[in-house]
Amino acid sequence: MSDVKVGIIMGSQSDWPTLREAATVLDELGVAYEARIVSAHRTPDRLWDYGKTAAERGLMAIIAGAGGAAHLPGMMASKTRVPVIGVPVQTRALGGVDSLYSIVQMPKGFPVATMAIGAAGAANAGLMAAAILALTDPALAERLDAWRAALSASIPEEPSDD
Amino acid sequence: MSDVKVGIIMGSQSDWPTLREAATVLDELGVAYEARIVSAHRTPDRLWDYGKTAAERGLMAIIAGAGGAAHLPGMMASKTRVPVIGVPVQTRALGGVDSLYSIVQMPKGFPVATMAIGAAGAANAGLMAAAILALTDPALAERLDAWRAALSASIPEEPSDD
Amino acid sequence: MSDVKVGIIMGSQSDWPTLREAATVLDELGVAYEARIVSAHRTPDRLWDYGKTAAERGLMAIIAGAGGAAHLPGMMASKTRVPVIGVPVQTRALGGVDSLYSIVQMPKGFPVATMAIGAAGAANAGLMAAAILALTDPALAERLDAWRAALSASIPEEPSDD
Amino acid sequence: MSDVKVGIIMGSQSDWPTLREAATVLDELGVAYEARIVSAHRTPDRLWDYGKTAAERGLMAIIAGAGGAAHLPGMMASKTRVPVIGVPVQTRALGGVDSLYSIVQMPKGFPVATMAIGAAGAANAGLMAAAILALTDPALAERLDAWRAALSASIPEEPSDD
Amino acid sequence: MSDVKVGIIMGSQSDWPTLREAATVLDELGVAYEARIVSAHRTPDRLWDYGKTAAERGLMAIIAGAGGAAHLPGMMASKTRVPVIGVPVQTRALGGVDSLYSIVQMPKGFPVATMAIGAAGAANAGLMAAAILALTDPALAERLDAWRAALSASIPEEPSDD
Amino acid sequence: MSDVKVGIIMGSQSDWPTLREAATVLDELGVAYEARIVSAHRTPDRLWDYGKTAAERGLMAIIAGAGGAAHLPGMMASKTRVPVIGVPVQTRALGGVDSLYSIVQMPKGFPVATMAIGAAGAANAGLMAAAILALTDPALAERLDAWRAALSASIPEEPSDD
Amino acid sequence: MSDVKVGIIMGSQSDWPTLREAATVLDELGVAYEARIVSAHRTPDRLWDYGKTAAERGLMAIIAGAGGAAHLPGMMASKTRVPVIGVPVQTRALGGVDSLYSIVQMPKGFPVATMAIGAAGAANAGLMAAAILALTDPALAERLDAWRAALSASIPEEPSDD
Amino acid sequence: MSDVKVGIIMGSQSDWPTLREAATVLDELGVAYEARIVSAHRTPDRLWDYGKTAAERGLMAIIAGAGGAAHLPGMMASKTRVPVIGVPVQTRALGGVDSLYSIVQMPKGFPVATMAIGAAGAANAGLMAAAILALTDPALAERLDAWRAALSASIPEEPSDD
Repeated sequence: MSDVKVGIIMGSQSDWPTLREAATVLDELGVAYEARIVSAHRTPDRLWDYGKTAAERGLMAIIAGAGGAAHLPGMMASKTRVPVIGVPVQTRALGGVDSLYSIVQMPKGFPVATMAIGAAGAANAGLMAAAILALTDPALAERLDAWRAALSASIPEEPSDD
Repeated sequence: MSDVKVGIIMGSQSDWPTLREAATVLDELGVAYEARIVSAHRTPDRLWDYGKTAAERGLMAIIAGAGGAAHLPGMMASKTRVPVIGVPVQTRALGGVDSLYSIVQMPKGFPVATMAIGAAGAANAGLMAAAILALTDPALAERLDAWRAALSASIPEEPSDD
Repeated sequence: MSDVKVGIIMGSQSDWPTLREAATVLDELGVAYEARIVSAHRTPDRLWDYGKTAAERGLMAIIAGAGGAAHLPGMMASKTRVPVIGVPVQTRALGGVDSLYSIVQMPKGFPVATMAIGAAGAANAGLMAAAILALTDPALAERLDAWRAALSASIPEEPSDD
Repeated sequence: MSDVKVGIIMGSQSDWPTLREAATVLDELGVAYEARIVSAHRTPDRLWDYGKTAAERGLMAIIAGAGGAAHLPGMMASKTRVPVIGVPVQTRALGGVDSLYSIVQMPKGFPVATMAIGAAGAANAGLMAAAILALTDPALAERLDAWRAALSASIPEEPSDD
Repeated sequence: MSDVKVGIIMGSQSDWPTLREAATVLDELGVAYEARIVSAHRTPDRLWDYGKTAAERGLMAIIAGAGGAAHLPGMMASKTRVPVIGVPVQTRALGGVDSLYSIVQMPKGFPVATMAIGAAGAANAGLMAAAILALTDPALAERLDAWRAALSASIPEEPSDD
Repeated sequence: MSDVKVGIIMGSQSDWPTLREAATVLDELGVAYEARIVSAHRTPDRLWDYGKTAAERGLMAIIAGAGGAAHLPGMMASKTRVPVIGVPVQTRALGGVDSLYSIVQMPKGFPVATMAIGAAGAANAGLMAAAILALTDPALAERLDAWRAALSASIPEEPSDD
Repeated sequence: MSDVKVGIIMGSQSDWPTLREAATVLDELGVAYEARIVSAHRTPDRLWDYGKTAAERGLMAIIAGAGGAAHLPGMMASKTRVPVIGVPVQTRALGGVDSLYSIVQMPKGFPVATMAIGAAGAANAGLMAAAILALTDPALAERLDAWRAALSASIPEEPSDD
Repeated sequence: MSDVKVGIIMGSQSDWPTLREAATVLDELGVAYEARIVSAHRTPDRLWDYGKTAAERGLMAIIAGAGGAAHLPGMMASKTRVPVIGVPVQTRALGGVDSLYSIVQMPKGFPVATMAIGAAGAANAGLMAAAILALTDPALAERLDAWRAALSASIPEEPSDD
């Protein structure tokens, strides 16, 4: 079993500027991950293989980002019991509401843990993956607590004009 | 090769009251079809098989209806070059806007011919399938023209109060 | 009967940057097409004539793009049994939701095969037209399969930072 | 030239319960009208004829109601310079937002005077038609003023619990 | 009675770039108009006075543009029986859907003839005002017909790449 | 100066089932109020008078409810400096989004303290009015604290199946 | 440390018919849970306490359902590193879009794993909690696989008319 | 008790460019205020403390701005009876509709006086706070009346082209 615990997958290269936020957070928290392009429509067999082997490969969370008719997170959720965290990528015409609805409105049986639209959602996907791993990794739990404490400590008391 | 030219597929039994409208129209036009439950999430392998054999089985159109995060039409479109006609099923919370966005907002490469939300869309899916077949079936083209003419002829001149 | 099998029509010159994506795909697939400006409101008689002769001229698909109160696709669908593929053009105020609803929410009797908003939708309109033609043109079917295979093959395994 | 000054047209019999509100208001104001079913998609030639003769027949306003991809008001506006007043009919899936966008978002050149969704909008269409006629019909102007005054006078000072 | 037949009013100077489109169309059609800033909230007494004298001053249409909680058109409609044509101005946060709903969703009794959001809607407001005047001004009717014919004639047959 | 500190106004009798929730809360808190029907469109002069005398009559808050193109709260806010609390009434076609946008999207200069759509919003309007009064009425502040404490105390620890 | 691994919390008793779907799924999967009413607004201190002790009590997932301005899931996520799964409860006026946005659009730092609106989302929250626990509980993983397999096996091949 | 009567709080430094509009208005009206960064999620204890001491510190209004899943105004409203005025900050993906719904759709018991999205809403929050203070501060009431009169007086009669 590999050391990689989290898979970050996305529908296309153009999703990477958004999904990279998840990778950055995982880097900050010392969580090993892999990043792959897996398109539900263009490489469905790659999706199938990825999903079918996810559990046995030791993945504990799969972060899946996509935009528009964003089928990747939901299709991955149908192929594996490993928790899938969905990131709706912002779109030009509809702002990402299309991505959000396509990811979050899953039918009974196949949950996708949906995050906010765009970069904040991708960062949070990293944090959610870490929170899941932290349940059974006390050292990571401490690092996650410290990350959260640092975030809170970084907030100044008063706004600044420049 | 079977006589069945059109496949009607849907995500669950609960979509049938909507999709039946497509079947009714195909019956009226004398087009042979089959109706199957094929869930993108619950029976993805069934979807795979259906898509991979669609062209060789002689299907000339696939009508796919689904609601919510409606992945069935788009996933089918990724598995076959046979034209896929998508029917967004109305949903309780969002009226079917979720179904519509999940079906229509497909990325470049995998078109889904999306119809209106609900029963009118399903009926129109039947008509669109027939229109495609009619391109190379003059007898069907005549029946379709007659169906359309009858629809127009059925419109009274003035509204009636009862 | 002309060799042109697909008509691309649009409401105004300003829709061409979007609709050109359809033309590009048809060029790539070796499908002959014509591009015309046909406005439902400004040149309704041109629309009438186009629709009335579409079938006899041998057109097998009409790609119609329009924005806002986008009546062109639906009106064309009422004048011909040739399959009409609708492309909602993005709009400034509403992002194209107005175009989408005006095209997709057709009443029973007159289907419009609606694509995604904007350029991806236009490209997919070209692919949908080709898929319809490919049903009875084995050489085109092969080219379409190759186009799809090339799209899938173009996807790298991993995202790249630059 | 006929005495009928206002035409009420609608896409189908099912729109009449909404459009009847316009007729009721015109009855109350003593304005002669005619009510016709004219479908943009099912009877486009009827629409063409109606629009082309509207001015010469002496119509001074055309009230056009439709639902979903509601093309009737806009298409009528493209065929005649007589003011067209549009009434978006409420729809099951989208509440009438589809009707509203399809009617109001007309391109430059072809205005449709759009009213509220549903019955209140239909009643207001009757009032708008009357207001246009009243510009050159002092007796009607007086009746319209009286109608408005009666509406205001009908408002009690305090709400009542039963 | 003044020669001015159309009043163009707007909530603030910032609406003028939109509303100027109405003025341009009226200039092209040779219709005399006045342009005034009348804010429903900041200068309600000015609104009151404008509305109360509109009919006796001989105004035959009032074009009212506003954005956000756009109360100007509806409040004007409550003060005069002269037809009020509403133009929803595009807004930064909501694109103008707020303006549209605030203008179009009037209760029974006080119609506002609502146009499209933004500049196209403003131009159409000018055309709608002209169409109302043209009902009793044959020379204007001819100019309006010519304007419409010129618009149609300006449409090229084919799109151009540059 | 009267003992009445809060005015509850609404556009029509049909708003009273919603606005009554505000009255009920004010009754529970022992705050004197009056309820009036004041329509922005049907009785604008009543609105003018109410607004102009509100401060001198000693009103400390005005609760204004309306639906659709809901102009009452905003117009009242333009006539008085007394705080106006707006309640968007639910609507049939659009659920009350039209009411909400028409009330909340006020331009700079004329704030309306907007509450939630419907009955919960009306109850909260009563609480907001009471909170304003409680700033200078210690006895009411105590009653308000007690009301809030009772609300919290009423929450059971666990959900019950019947 | 208690045997309870999952907490189901909700803003009020009225959310229980929705959230009970989560409990049912956890029952089916043999996962011990507790159900509590914890209101972000009415019992904020209860929320504080629940969040602060969640990790040390051994909770591995918290399912939080709420409607409207649904602050419960997000506030819980700010008080604990235990994964929070959010369920948007359907609302009367807006269908649950308000609940969805209030839950899913969390800022960087505090992810909420958002599910679909309503009962399907609640059931999926139970499945997501189980999937997290199954990562380190092989027996549960087997039961979850069996549950999923049974779901797939329950899908008939063809739709039935009654 | 401090002289500060109004607290301006915001979720993060990035909200200050919006909220500063409230400060500017309060400066213009001579109302003493404090500005603080208080994040519902990142510094919940700061929020708790702020809310619990607000009344005893003599605050008479709290202006709270936030974006996305904007929990700050509502959570503050649950901790104090001092009136809370909410400002929805515009967001990139959804324009601020998410902020608006998260702030305005509060359940019964905890009103937030919601303003328009963005800068106009922030300015109005300052005016609403001043209006509340002016109820018992005649000098401020005069300054507020003057501010409003100056706003009205600043409106020119006619729009200007440059």
